[in-house]
Amino acid sequence: MSTTVVLLSDTNPAGVIADASAPLINIEDQGLTRGDGVFETMLAVNRSVRKIDAHLTRLAGSARLLELPMPSEKQWQDAIATALKEAEVGARTPLGEEHTVKLIISRGTVEEGPHSWVTVAPSSAKVLSQREEGVKAMLLPRGHDPAEDSAYPWLLAGAKTLSYAVNMSVLRYVKSRGADDAIWVTDERRILEGATSSVIVAKTVNGVKTLYTPEPSHGILPGTTQGTIFNGARENGWELGFGPLYPQDLLEADGVWLASSVRLLAPVTHLNGTKIAVDADTTYELLGYLANN
Amino acid sequence: MSTTVVLLSDTNPAGVIADASAPLINIEDQGLTRGDGVFETMLAVNRSVRKIDAHLTRLAGSARLLELPMPSEKQWQDAIATALKEAEVGARTPLGEEHTVKLIISRGTVEEGPHSWVTVAPSSAKVLSQREEGVKAMLLPRGHDPAEDSAYPWLLAGAKTLSYAVNMSVLRYVKSRGADDAIWVTDERRILEGATSSVIVAKTVNGVKTLYTPEPSHGILPGTTQGTIFNGARENGWELGFGPLYPQDLLEADGVWLASSVRLLAPVTHLNGTKIAVDADTTYELLGYLANN
Repeated sequence: MSTTVVLLSDTNPAGVIADASAPLINIEDQGLTRGDGVFETMLAVNRSVRKIDAHLTRLAGSARLLELPMPSEKQWQDAIATALKEAEVGARTPLGEEHTVKLIISRGTVEEGPHSWVTVAPSSAKVLSQREEGVKAMLLPRGHDPAEDSAYPWLLAGAKTLSYAVNMSVLRYVKSRGADDAIWVTDERRILEGATSSVIVAKTVNGVKTLYTPEPSHGILPGTTQGTIFNGARENGWELGFGPLYPQDLLEADGVWLASSVRLLAPVTHLNGTKIAVDADTTYELLGYLANN
Repeated sequence: MSTTVVLLSDTNPAGVIADASAPLINIEDQGLTRGDGVFETMLAVNRSVRKIDAHLTRLAGSARLLELPMPSEKQWQDAIATALKEAEVGARTPLGEEHTVKLIISRGTVEEGPHSWVTVAPSSAKVLSQREEGVKAMLLPRGHDPAEDSAYPWLLAGAKTLSYAVNMSVLRYVKSRGADDAIWVTDERRILEGATSSVIVAKTVNGVKTLYTPEPSHGILPGTTQGTIFNGARENGWELGFGPLYPQDLLEADGVWLASSVRLLAPVTHLNGTKIAVDADTTYELLGYLANN
């Protein structure tokens, strides 16, 4: 399974196809030495990227916070088209042919400056199976409430940066304990977000079906998938709620999901080892809201 | 000014010299895509690395927290020796010939796994001039007290990781406001550490000269330079104090410094635009404690 790489270029509007099996990055690139860059991960179905506007908007916001130059929408679109055309056959799923598409802007070397690229690869089997089979999640403290960071722009709250060491670390931690994914909580046990996803909770109260997610404007990353699902749900008669949510809310829910762009909706089957309700009908319904976006 | 790179290799004990002007890193290296790796930055004077044991000990601790394989001390020493022998002429200073030496362990690609390397370059003119002329520093909120993170190993408190986007961001912020460096404070305005350094404060109280630094065991990185200076100071009759420190303590001090391995001791000349006391004699004395380490 190989990755297709297209480097953005000011002189070549369609981007430049590069050989991903050869080294492409300078060892002093500050994306590498300092995690100094931003990214988006997107899903392409039948070689068409889902909800690209939401991703480009969020990428522009991340780039602004890091003072990185954002290529134009047309540059991204053209490079993505080049990469998707060139990519090897994707994963076959009920949705169609699936690829994972990444956009990256790195600070580059001090001499050369920032640069941007697109990678495309078939979506991984593990991500696709978690969509079907769900995930065992653990609740783990984030150490602090990220809302505390959101007042200070230099802390980059809400930017999706290459500095993801802690997100990767918590995934190693839960896997070493037999789980698949992590849900961050504050020290007061308020639910925040998944390691690389948003948390969505469904609950029917007095006959009113309601979809909840933690308040997205306070230091946690606004989820493009969660946002699209909530838009569809609102149009289809759901009430929407924005937390605060606590572990008890998840344990008593009709269903809990981790929402992200490539995995889409992973039903949470266990929380800290305890089996929780899984609602296959609602999974199907919510996936429908993502179908045309 | 060019950088010398030596890749660590299991089959070549002295390491492999690589051409830093050519791309050396795969575009899917997780050091790049996830900031998933650890590093140390060290000073070499006359092609001999200062306090290498402290750096290798801290690097081993960082690697352990990230579950990365740590090359043996001999592998590092041999690769460093190869790189220092190969390096171009370093910066000429009163100390001798100076190079900046970096050790990096990256997660690598999923297929190839972790890898390690050494880079050596002449120390930058800016770092050397800040040693002489001092720095204007700004106190900026860290958003949270990093002590809150230290109970949870998955948060990587005390690991020096490649995920440095926030450290770089705060330096851009202070430079845009005419300052040179940042000192993190908690929301209660307790002093933490510099963006890439430790804070040291000298104050004579009732005739007793005391050197202070914020308590290093609670989520801030234990500084190898600060540690070496404190060892020397203790042997030379200084009292040592470990905070808590507040802005008023810095404003009323005999001298304030940012301590780090390459810049050594940068006297803080201004704090949020206010001129503070500079103590050249103590700078000279403290630098002496670093001379043989």
